[in-house]
Amino acid sequence: MKYIDGGVTAAKGFEAAATAAGIKYKDRTDMAMIYSAEPCVAAGTFTTNVCKAAPVIWDKQICDSGAAVHAVVVNSGIANACTGQEGLDICQGTADAAAEALSIPADSVVLGSTGVIGKQIPLDKIAAGVKVLAGEKCSCIEAGSKAAAAIMTTDTCPKELAVTIEVDGVTVTIGGMAKGSGMIHPNMCTMLAFITTDAVITKEALQSALSDDVNDTYNMISVDGDTSTNDTVLVLANGQAGNPVIECGTPAYEEFKKALHEINEYLAKKIAGDGEGATALFTVIAKGCESVEQAKLLAKSIACSNLVKTAIAGHDANWGRILCAMGYSGAQFDPVKVDLSFESAAGQIQICENGTAVDYSEDKATEILSESEITATVDVHMGDCQATAWGCDLTHAYIEINADYRS
Amino acid sequence: MKYIDGGVTAAKGFEAAATAAGIKYKDRTDMAMIYSAEPCVAAGTFTTNVCKAAPVIWDKQICDSGAAVHAVVVNSGIANACTGQEGLDICQGTADAAAEALSIPADSVVLGSTGVIGKQIPLDKIAAGVKVLAGEKCSCIEAGSKAAAAIMTTDTCPKELAVTIEVDGVTVTIGGMAKGSGMIHPNMCTMLAFITTDAVITKEALQSALSDDVNDTYNMISVDGDTSTNDTVLVLANGQAGNPVIECGTPAYEEFKKALHEINEYLAKKIAGDGEGATALFTVIAKGCESVEQAKLLAKSIACSNLVKTAIAGHDANWGRILCAMGYSGAQFDPVKVDLSFESAAGQIQICENGTAVDYSEDKATEILSESEITATVDVHMGDCQATAWGCDLTHAYIEINADYRS
Repeated sequence: MKYIDGGVTAAKGFEAAATAAGIKYKDRTDMAMIYSAEPCVAAGTFTTNVCKAAPVIWDKQICDSGAAVHAVVVNSGIANACTGQEGLDICQGTADAAAEALSIPADSVVLGSTGVIGKQIPLDKIAAGVKVLAGEKCSCIEAGSKAAAAIMTTDTCPKELAVTIEVDGVTVTIGGMAKGSGMIHPNMCTMLAFITTDAVITKEALQSALSDDVNDTYNMISVDGDTSTNDTVLVLANGQAGNPVIECGTPAYEEFKKALHEINEYLAKKIAGDGEGATALFTVIAKGCESVEQAKLLAKSIACSNLVKTAIAGHDANWGRILCAMGYSGAQFDPVKVDLSFESAAGQIQICENGTAVDYSEDKATEILSESEITATVDVHMGDCQATAWGCDLTHAYIEINADYRS
Repeated sequence: MKYIDGGVTAAKGFEAAATAAGIKYKDRTDMAMIYSAEPCVAAGTFTTNVCKAAPVIWDKQICDSGAAVHAVVVNSGIANACTGQEGLDICQGTADAAAEALSIPADSVVLGSTGVIGKQIPLDKIAAGVKVLAGEKCSCIEAGSKAAAAIMTTDTCPKELAVTIEVDGVTVTIGGMAKGSGMIHPNMCTMLAFITTDAVITKEALQSALSDDVNDTYNMISVDGDTSTNDTVLVLANGQAGNPVIECGTPAYEEFKKALHEINEYLAKKIAGDGEGATALFTVIAKGCESVEQAKLLAKSIACSNLVKTAIAGHDANWGRILCAMGYSGAQFDPVKVDLSFESAAGQIQICENGTAVDYSEDKATEILSESEITATVDVHMGDCQATAWGCDLTHAYIEINADYRS
């Protein structure tokens, strides 16, 4: 696997564009398009929230139907969630506008929206935006980066990555972009992620690779415990690499899945580390577990605890809160067998052995916890399984972002 | 039912005391005792956290054994959780000190601790404190209030209540005290609550009344989603009222349970409203549900959402976050049938009908949401069941309390 520059336009045959449609924000881009002239096989995973946003309902229908996909239209500012029939009509209107501008079927257009819930998207503005996007789309790297910036809400930075792999001697490229950064507790999986690849791959293999991998990536991050109405991960494969078709269960499938995982894990970590108000990416590894499920429960419970997250914000090795979060995770374990250590660029420190504190240096612990990437590792000494979850600290800025503005 | 002054010393035959033992805090009381010369029937409910604090393990054993209880010894400052065998030895040492000072069996002493996890309580200080408490205990109302103040940690006010009921013409008194105010997401059920009554009641009836009622009171509050290692509710009944014995399933039992519920709901609401950093008690009523379980899931999910809580802090009728929290609650419902309204001392306002916004006044909504007690009512129009949950807003002060100090 090789890292290359770019994001959604890195793979052959994909173009992108961004524009300022004025849907809610002023003075910034708020719409993006991804386009492939060649029809794409599409795979998607969507929020499990009962209140599914209109574009989630729209996309799910297209993914389930097996229709070929040509374009993705995404807007930020308004989520088109809790918008009733009018919200679905706006999806239809947006797809119709894209179909006309790009001369493609309306059911080959998938959608993504993120922003405030409950407001209607002005159809005239989004339709005008689609027209601009269709005219400006480009296969250059910059176009992908601009698209990644246009879909941001409270994100502080765009999130994109691209890699290449060799499939039977043919270079296949996968690139993706995503946005966070509040209402993040994916369970699929307001995160949006769009991944493009020029791989030749069956729909079944693409969906299977994605569905498996979201459980270890996006579904293992949390910013605030709120599972959004809009969570969407879409992967489009247009087959332009010309490799022998990738099917489930083959070595090429495993290789493709590994590369997809790299993209997903990178984007998921970027979302966690750029959580609203976050100053640190907080990685939690639960090991020595008797099952992966147990490890996931423990890691995620720690990463999600408000009290652990505020302790990280305070650079405080308040390990009792970590054991407490493990204790209410739903996983069984013996509290007197738990080891805990912290690690960052400033070093590594053992905090707790057999469930009680070792004689550690608080100063050293504070130094380690003052870095921007911190890892906590807990070991319950019950087996060989492990899992990783990613979160962030809970700071004043989270309160500012969510109490002081309607986001 | 009649409200009277006082708390744990309101019922006949109960004494209390508070002292400054210097366990962690300086310049404030940090230990309390409740004492009854007559042996008490005891009922308790405890945290479901796997990491149970030493005093939880101690109390559970005594409650299960059916031993008569004479005294409760509580300290604030250190939770005696994640303290291993040494922590259990400190429980034994504390009970031994109380047994000696009060001339009672050690297994008639129940314990409560709250504060930082993972530190050991200095046995010499707690034993000296027990001696002072035993010498100063008093049946006056002030003694109960001082005890309620001594068990506080980050609480901003003591929490106590007392009521009387008539059981077959005999006046029975029930009084209680509790503390919050972080790591509050009881599931039994760092809240501690101690309730005393002079009722003559069987152990079975007392436990049954308590176990039932915690599910509708303490287990329906949340400050931060963190279920503590120390949650404990204890009810002691010393039989000094002289009423005919209260047994399960009788009208007297129902009357007693109603009074106990009054105490529990009052204390639970006080804990929610005095959550760390809170400026408002946030009550959520879910109605029109097909089952109480569904109503509880919906009400609790809304009350626990960080995004809803920050919106309340910002006096923002950000109703999309409420529908979102309902959507990931685990309860099924039809999003397009949801009604939502807010109510406070400033009035009542309908926000949402059939899942989408009505044309409400944002100014009026902000006025209503600026009060210190706010109620959100959601109706899913599926049946006649309802449930209430209590939470609070999420403010800068929560971050300050938990990121800036080790609490």
